[in-house]
Amino acid sequence: MAANSLAPSAFEQAQRQGDEAIRTSLLDAASRLLAAEGPQSLALRRIAAEVGCSTTVLYRMFGGKAGLIEALYIEGFERFRRRLAAVPRDPDPRAYLRELGLAYRDNALAERNYYGLMFGEPVPGFEPGRQAFDTALSAYQILEDAVVDCAAAGLLIDAEPRHVAVSFWAAVHGFVSLELDGHLPDADAIICTLMQGASSGFFVTPRK
Amino acid sequence: MAANSLAPSAFEQAQRQGDEAIRTSLLDAASRLLAAEGPQSLALRRIAAEVGCSTTVLYRMFGGKAGLIEALYIEGFERFRRRLAAVPRDPDPRAYLRELGLAYRDNALAERNYYGLMFGEPVPGFEPGRQAFDTALSAYQILEDAVVDCAAAGLLIDAEPRHVAVSFWAAVHGFVSLELDGHLPDADAIICTLMQGASSGFFVTPRK
Repeated sequence: MAANSLAPSAFEQAQRQGDEAIRTSLLDAASRLLAAEGPQSLALRRIAAEVGCSTTVLYRMFGGKAGLIEALYIEGFERFRRRLAAVPRDPDPRAYLRELGLAYRDNALAERNYYGLMFGEPVPGFEPGRQAFDTALSAYQILEDAVVDCAAAGLLIDAEPRHVAVSFWAAVHGFVSLELDGHLPDADAIICTLMQGASSGFFVTPRK
Repeated sequence: MAANSLAPSAFEQAQRQGDEAIRTSLLDAASRLLAAEGPQSLALRRIAAEVGCSTTVLYRMFGGKAGLIEALYIEGFERFRRRLAAVPRDPDPRAYLRELGLAYRDNALAERNYYGLMFGEPVPGFEPGRQAFDTALSAYQILEDAVVDCAAAGLLIDAEPRHVAVSFWAAVHGFVSLELDGHLPDADAIICTLMQGASSGFFVTPRK
């Protein structure tokens, strides 16, 4: 509990909303610590102190540190999956793919503390388990399905749709990695060019 | 000097080839340590021991630890620049751009210990100086010039060539980051699709 403050602690606020809110505030505190200070900051005592609860709550909810890290992966991928799943289908499969790319970026910016966890290797040696893997896969599947729809509509070059999907992912992943690392001052303009290029080509057909 | 071995140490071998070879073997040892064990492994004594020389040599060549880290950035970007500069010009500017993309990947795979240094933030708080920045820029310029040539040949969509160049960079950077992190088992096939897509479009023109 935050002893120096009259305002209710994050834990006290969360308690009023039930276990789900407590869980979220613990995960958000842990992902913030991980992104800001690295894996050595992920001590249960430290996270408990950030939120204003006892470590007992962390043991009860996550079973311990490994369970907490696993829960971080699942939470990150689940938010990502929800964000992609919320993109309205567009009758034009290329326009839909473009919107998925923009949603991918929005998620990375909104959840930057989770993004590094999901696609970097911030906790050396930790291997996420089956549930995290399945959640990641079902998010990725939304992208791949959109590319397969483009192929079905006769819009794809002569290439494996699966390879085009990975290429599209690589392009957006590279973009948000560079943006999150502060390398892209013009990011808003460039993402539009990237999505236009990745979903319709960067090049015009040359006149014969 | 490696006391337990009859074979000459890396330092002894390098001494026979002169200062440039010693410098390279020190930088390669440092970049290997950094990639494998993180920034806390970058102690001058540790690097000297890896190569089999005294720390005096490191002080003489780099002035100290900050100078060594700066030299690592410059070395990484310089190898990268040389690799791109060695790509033969192709009369077709899109084919040339594709070859640059493949060379970018080749460099990342061959110099993976330097790649994380160049585009991640492996030494927290360290800001590379002017010379590293200029070397990085002159490497990047080769990519941007190739895109500008495509624009001059009337091959580009209606977008800032500079934004297309960053998009192309983001795509290749995202690809090699995922590949280096072990996420792309089919990398050889996918890079071809990515380069075809990034240099000519992933999509065919739909029939009216």
